[in-house]
Amino acid sequence: MSRVLVRGGTVVTAADTVLAEVLIDGETVLGVVSPGSQTAIDFARGADRVIEAAGCYVVPGGIDAHTHFESVGQPEAPVLDTFETGTIASAYGGTTTVIDFAGPRPDGGQRLQDAVAWYHDKASASCAVDYAFHVMVQDVDDQTPLDMDELVREGVTSFKMFTAYAGRSYSPDDRILRMLQQSTRNGGLIMMHAENGFAIELLRDQAVERGDVDPVWHSLTRPPILEAEAVHRVAALAEVAGAPLYVVHVSSGEAVNELARARDRGTTVFAETCPQYLFLDLDDLREPGFGGAKYVCSPPLRAAEQQNGLWRGLANHDLHTVATDHCPFCWAQKEIGRGDFRSIPNGIPGVEHRVEQMYEGAVLGGRLSLNRWVDVCSTAPARLFGMYPRKGTIAPGADADIVVFDPQAPHVISAATHHMNVDYSAYEGQLLHGKVRTVLVRGSVVVEDDAFVGRSGYGRFVRRDVGDYLL
Amino acid sequence: MSRVLVRGGTVVTAADTVLAEVLIDGETVLGVVSPGSQTAIDFARGADRVIEAAGCYVVPGGIDAHTHFESVGQPEAPVLDTFETGTIASAYGGTTTVIDFAGPRPDGGQRLQDAVAWYHDKASASCAVDYAFHVMVQDVDDQTPLDMDELVREGVTSFKMFTAYAGRSYSPDDRILRMLQQSTRNGGLIMMHAENGFAIELLRDQAVERGDVDPVWHSLTRPPILEAEAVHRVAALAEVAGAPLYVVHVSSGEAVNELARARDRGTTVFAETCPQYLFLDLDDLREPGFGGAKYVCSPPLRAAEQQNGLWRGLANHDLHTVATDHCPFCWAQKEIGRGDFRSIPNGIPGVEHRVEQMYEGAVLGGRLSLNRWVDVCSTAPARLFGMYPRKGTIAPGADADIVVFDPQAPHVISAATHHMNVDYSAYEGQLLHGKVRTVLVRGSVVVEDDAFVGRSGYGRFVRRDVGDYLL
Amino acid sequence: MSRVLVRGGTVVTAADTVLAEVLIDGETVLGVVSPGSQTAIDFARGADRVIEAAGCYVVPGGIDAHTHFESVGQPEAPVLDTFETGTIASAYGGTTTVIDFAGPRPDGGQRLQDAVAWYHDKASASCAVDYAFHVMVQDVDDQTPLDMDELVREGVTSFKMFTAYAGRSYSPDDRILRMLQQSTRNGGLIMMHAENGFAIELLRDQAVERGDVDPVWHSLTRPPILEAEAVHRVAALAEVAGAPLYVVHVSSGEAVNELARARDRGTTVFAETCPQYLFLDLDDLREPGFGGAKYVCSPPLRAAEQQNGLWRGLANHDLHTVATDHCPFCWAQKEIGRGDFRSIPNGIPGVEHRVEQMYEGAVLGGRLSLNRWVDVCSTAPARLFGMYPRKGTIAPGADADIVVFDPQAPHVISAATHHMNVDYSAYEGQLLHGKVRTVLVRGSVVVEDDAFVGRSGYGRFVRRDVGDYLL
Amino acid sequence: MSRVLVRGGTVVTAADTVLAEVLIDGETVLGVVSPGSQTAIDFARGADRVIEAAGCYVVPGGIDAHTHFESVGQPEAPVLDTFETGTIASAYGGTTTVIDFAGPRPDGGQRLQDAVAWYHDKASASCAVDYAFHVMVQDVDDQTPLDMDELVREGVTSFKMFTAYAGRSYSPDDRILRMLQQSTRNGGLIMMHAENGFAIELLRDQAVERGDVDPVWHSLTRPPILEAEAVHRVAALAEVAGAPLYVVHVSSGEAVNELARARDRGTTVFAETCPQYLFLDLDDLREPGFGGAKYVCSPPLRAAEQQNGLWRGLANHDLHTVATDHCPFCWAQKEIGRGDFRSIPNGIPGVEHRVEQMYEGAVLGGRLSLNRWVDVCSTAPARLFGMYPRKGTIAPGADADIVVFDPQAPHVISAATHHMNVDYSAYEGQLLHGKVRTVLVRGSVVVEDDAFVGRSGYGRFVRRDVGDYLL
Repeated sequence: MSRVLVRGGTVVTAADTVLAEVLIDGETVLGVVSPGSQTAIDFARGADRVIEAAGCYVVPGGIDAHTHFESVGQPEAPVLDTFETGTIASAYGGTTTVIDFAGPRPDGGQRLQDAVAWYHDKASASCAVDYAFHVMVQDVDDQTPLDMDELVREGVTSFKMFTAYAGRSYSPDDRILRMLQQSTRNGGLIMMHAENGFAIELLRDQAVERGDVDPVWHSLTRPPILEAEAVHRVAALAEVAGAPLYVVHVSSGEAVNELARARDRGTTVFAETCPQYLFLDLDDLREPGFGGAKYVCSPPLRAAEQQNGLWRGLANHDLHTVATDHCPFCWAQKEIGRGDFRSIPNGIPGVEHRVEQMYEGAVLGGRLSLNRWVDVCSTAPARLFGMYPRKGTIAPGADADIVVFDPQAPHVISAATHHMNVDYSAYEGQLLHGKVRTVLVRGSVVVEDDAFVGRSGYGRFVRRDVGDYLL
Repeated sequence: MSRVLVRGGTVVTAADTVLAEVLIDGETVLGVVSPGSQTAIDFARGADRVIEAAGCYVVPGGIDAHTHFESVGQPEAPVLDTFETGTIASAYGGTTTVIDFAGPRPDGGQRLQDAVAWYHDKASASCAVDYAFHVMVQDVDDQTPLDMDELVREGVTSFKMFTAYAGRSYSPDDRILRMLQQSTRNGGLIMMHAENGFAIELLRDQAVERGDVDPVWHSLTRPPILEAEAVHRVAALAEVAGAPLYVVHVSSGEAVNELARARDRGTTVFAETCPQYLFLDLDDLREPGFGGAKYVCSPPLRAAEQQNGLWRGLANHDLHTVATDHCPFCWAQKEIGRGDFRSIPNGIPGVEHRVEQMYEGAVLGGRLSLNRWVDVCSTAPARLFGMYPRKGTIAPGADADIVVFDPQAPHVISAATHHMNVDYSAYEGQLLHGKVRTVLVRGSVVVEDDAFVGRSGYGRFVRRDVGDYLL
Repeated sequence: MSRVLVRGGTVVTAADTVLAEVLIDGETVLGVVSPGSQTAIDFARGADRVIEAAGCYVVPGGIDAHTHFESVGQPEAPVLDTFETGTIASAYGGTTTVIDFAGPRPDGGQRLQDAVAWYHDKASASCAVDYAFHVMVQDVDDQTPLDMDELVREGVTSFKMFTAYAGRSYSPDDRILRMLQQSTRNGGLIMMHAENGFAIELLRDQAVERGDVDPVWHSLTRPPILEAEAVHRVAALAEVAGAPLYVVHVSSGEAVNELARARDRGTTVFAETCPQYLFLDLDDLREPGFGGAKYVCSPPLRAAEQQNGLWRGLANHDLHTVATDHCPFCWAQKEIGRGDFRSIPNGIPGVEHRVEQMYEGAVLGGRLSLNRWVDVCSTAPARLFGMYPRKGTIAPGADADIVVFDPQAPHVISAATHHMNVDYSAYEGQLLHGKVRTVLVRGSVVVEDDAFVGRSGYGRFVRRDVGDYLL
Repeated sequence: MSRVLVRGGTVVTAADTVLAEVLIDGETVLGVVSPGSQTAIDFARGADRVIEAAGCYVVPGGIDAHTHFESVGQPEAPVLDTFETGTIASAYGGTTTVIDFAGPRPDGGQRLQDAVAWYHDKASASCAVDYAFHVMVQDVDDQTPLDMDELVREGVTSFKMFTAYAGRSYSPDDRILRMLQQSTRNGGLIMMHAENGFAIELLRDQAVERGDVDPVWHSLTRPPILEAEAVHRVAALAEVAGAPLYVVHVSSGEAVNELARARDRGTTVFAETCPQYLFLDLDDLREPGFGGAKYVCSPPLRAAEQQNGLWRGLANHDLHTVATDHCPFCWAQKEIGRGDFRSIPNGIPGVEHRVEQMYEGAVLGGRLSLNRWVDVCSTAPARLFGMYPRKGTIAPGADADIVVFDPQAPHVISAATHHMNVDYSAYEGQLLHGKVRTVLVRGSVVVEDDAFVGRSGYGRFVRRDVGDYLL
């Protein structure tokens, strides 16, 4: 077993910021000790490798709890970021675990287990970093709660449902409630895409009918009030069930207000936001020449003033995690929607940049502490999704998923240099002052000197426990 | 330098819960390493002492940010808990640092520095655990902000003001605002006792005039709305100043609502509650035969239904710390108020029980995680009051202020057995399932086998930095 | 044309309380003049009839905007209150106009016009007081908005939709939004039954499955949060459409809170509550021996503490009208649900008592002024439903729908004495201090000396304008 | 006694909008009857005068519940609008009753009665329209509540206190509470100027110290949060006392939010706003060349976006009245503050324009109904201040204070044409589409054909009852 020492850096966890050396024994952290102590010296002497981290933060590997690898927007579209390319890009950006969404194989079985089996097939030999699955729940019958029980036992403990996408992924409220109820028995966590799908479909069709077909209408037909409405609704259902709830990709301050209200009522609601909602806005959708299509995702980008509410939500613990909702559509796919924004595939690629972007906006922006940066990028998703203390911290016994982060290494995001298999970047030109320097996954260096040095298939499936809902 | 190993336990910090051994070298933590690892074995071999913690939680020493030792309620009253007896009781209960309030010497100088000097005199040779001071600000003139600057430089970085106690400690709003403004320059933290002092004085006098003189009237003349009002007011002043604010001893769910609203507006408001508000209620004040006098403190105990709001506030990060507001009045002093509740000294002793009580109510009550228990009892006060990372965590370089906490050691609070120098207990008969077993202050064992084995005077003044206001 | 003088009383309108004589010329009010003035004396001289109202309030006839006459709960059930018996009972209670809900004839056409035609057939020769129709909208296709336009032009200007009753009357949110949008064009008013139908159906079925079949479960499976949720949702839809909205039969303080929030956002939301929610509560549903079935209606009766929120809503103009939701089921029909509360017909008869009950609770209860009593019982429904100034006031040109109300005529509600064709009363035993003494509909006395002296068929259909949405 | 008929118009009261003729007999309204009815014809035959109102609204005379006539801002300043000139201007603008504030004679007695006596002296022979007094309460001792009782008995039933103006008019919270308590016994109404006086004084002095002396700083040193704070505070005191409360001159949407919250808690809070807050904004204060001084009043003009909150407050019954806070300073007085905004006299003249301005903004702006326009300008102040039904309506027995308002008579406000004795207008150039055509005070025409035809001294003191606090 290999022994590695990370020394000279400042170890930052969700609670601590201390000068310390990290002792790694094989796949896990052996300890964290004072720099220069005899213990550290002894360990260094026997170490296979010493990683110098002077001037750097040494942080738990990022956990991106919201990716969509190998999903294809349209029938004929190529598969872009596979689990292989996507997780390599993740590694570059300091994300050492991803949780992808297992959806039903178009021609496959209808049970939730079938979706998970399919995704195991896709991912098992491909991943460069560790991975886990949420399951998409698209229909609920009497069997579904039992399937849920079984999956929880098998380490797939979170389940996504939709109030959006009427006629497709949408679930009516009774089915959402039914699954929330079941989650109180098996400990699983229901995740919700909260937008009012029916109302939005109408507004979309009306916009196109009257000739409003450009990308910006993707946002204008999904007003924040229809996100806030759905958040209020699913929080009410969670209150009725007495169940915890996790709202994915919250995009507006108005939705944050509803989350805060629900929590003030005593409902256990958690929520995620994404870099696109923190760093991009409605004006991007107006980029001329159909350029706005790059920024089409759901919920949509909002007017810039909504961003304050999101940052406040993160600071006030009304938002708990930041994930990317990484959707690797290429430009040719986006082109499909020229002339009808409804056909633009929904999603923005970004799995590579999250940790660095959040350092920029949160820490350098003076909005969150270093610890809270680690919390929203790694620790909170680990806890909520049942991977803690294996993931999400640097502590004895934890997987040695570690990022050496250089806070003074300015660089600029560009499709020309990023490692995601996508031919554009929604963040083209964004200046970031901090940069991931070295990345370890379970004790093995996978990124160093700006190069991926891991291997596909190294990533391991993380069998998860039920989450910890007392953050 | 002495080397100590704490082994076999579960180390709990504000973020982590891991099986680990704690390596202590002299006064500080050297490291935290995997149990049974070679590194641990090597350290154990050279250790002066090994503390077995199997089955126990190993947590950072508690920080009680609100004590009033050596304060005398009435001119003729004896000094009860001195810094010596008070800090010994603190040690018994797992609190390894206290922050007391330096008030003006009755016959002394009027500058804030004079108060601090006086309290240094009182405490410097007496304390069994580490200690620091907040300063009482009772009047504000042109010099006061400059005095504040100087004290911040000297490591006294928090300043308490009052909207309560009209005619005594009360400060008008312009003076509060002036100090809040100054705090944005020097980084200090303004602490507020938030009740509407003028309105309350009137209600008190009216109650006595009409013959309502029993202890319960102490609460009935201080309705929650007059606490919520003052919280709203001081939060507004903080918003105007752009300053952080810390509200002490929040007692009601209504006040929590105002805190939440202020945070939702983007104001940086922190707040503390106390065990008395979480475990006692208005009915205690109705204890017959003047027994209610035991429970007289300000703000007062509330109707039991207010407690939910407090617990929710802790869970939702609208309340951030739990402190005791320890006031060691004896029964004879309380007796002064027989026949006129206004003369009952305000305050409840409790410095000894906080950590154990919070384990009972928060952790066993299913309301907070183990980590959040540590956070509110130790880490958050350390951060807010500029003692982190020296205090408030178990991590390399931190002071080895460590509590071995046995979660399965039921015992009952009683004046007959507690160590505070007070002849009654407001918590007489409260059953606690967890118990502090061993306590270290800066690497030295001060409590073990139910005995205090430290010494008065061991405690050291903690020169504080300005706080970290991004929690 | 007959000339009538009402003299000696205090004329109360939504704004005024004055000693005055009311001059009636034929069907309409000619004027309101000072008592004893020469003008009054002159008119009295030529009057066909003088009604003495000394000691009484002279108020506009009540408008009950929510009745269900001739509706049958179960296939085999007898028709109880017909338009004839129901409007006679209305007259007894001082309600001179009712607005009933035109629903689709089971075997009839599907257009909204077909429902209205059917109800014209039912009501045209039967009514003792004036009447109008809302239309039930149970499905929405491309034709429906056009049908709505046509009905608005024909004087049927309000349209009821449901978020309740999944699988039956329920409309999905896009259809509600579509109709709200149309209402901004034609001036009509969308009325909503706001409860979350899908979630409630699940809870109902689960209750019965586990053996909770008694009437009280009708309420326990429809928690207030599921009413508040739906209110929030439909208010959001109204905000998106920019349309006014009227929420029927609001039953809980929690729902009132959502109404207030929506209005604070600038949404034009109006709402109605009913006497059953103000005077009855959850405990009534627990009446032994299946007696609780008498009180089954939807939304259900709530815990008594919700009533404060309703009264506050009326006082604060967050609730605007009081209607009865009169549903005349007989005891045999209620019996159907013995052993399964889901089969108990939903509804409470009460059209006869509303004006007197509201005087008792609102005016004698000190909660509303005399004027606001008139407003919520008569003027506000007249304005919102496009009948003002013909109805809803006593002023020159208005229909002479007038009630002489004796504030000192105590009596007790009983099935033995009421005039509704129902064999029980949900209000059995309720003491009322004020009593309707004389009732005129368009200048004709229809009730006096405790006797109905009008005739069936006298009542006239009120062709309505679009409502006035600036109250 | 003179008999007058107003015919051909649309009579608008707080509840009604009807074509009707108004019969006036001497000082009071005899009746309101249908146009062209025999009764009207008979009355016309014997009438001394017939006023044609075709195409006009016939509305109750306006009541301006907030004027400051004969108040002098600075020792040496001339008295501008006297009770004579001020009430003549009032008459021109359709305001037939004013309530002025009786403040203490600088060299006079300290009892409240002394102030009232002084103001009786000032006003008794001078007024062109009817008048009443509120009393300024600037200090509270044991005698003050008794003085209040006596004044209530004498028809002076409202009492103004201040949280603003630290060191001058300011009252501490206990005195406000004491007077609120007394008001629950005598039925009087406490009126509050709600701004945080102490905090504002500090901000003002700091601004001047750093050289920010221009008029706009008058607003920037009085941020809306310090108004909202004080509203929240006085509402809390009212809640403690169980007393009604009236907040004068509310200027910001943030303050409206606090009013709404207080009402949602069940507190009986009423509030007034003023035309300056609805039609002017912060940018006016930036008018170059010290022109901003014209717009200096307290609370100050706000950023334009606050206006929406005020209009919403009026629509939602969270604001109840519109008054002018008429302060007739001349330009020379304003000049005193050149170089130090603190010396600019606070106040804007406007008593002449309120009724017309509110028609413009409320009715033509589509924000309020005609009835609500009458309500906020006349009926609500009449009710709240105990003058109803003598004032505030057109109904039998009411004083014949009547305005014939021509909705189609565009004109422009200008100092060159207004009738107030002030040499500038804050509203210079404002276009108004409706115009007061004829004004009657107690049956006598005082304005017609753009001329004042009444006389000074005609106005009578209105001895008021306690208010009606159930609106």
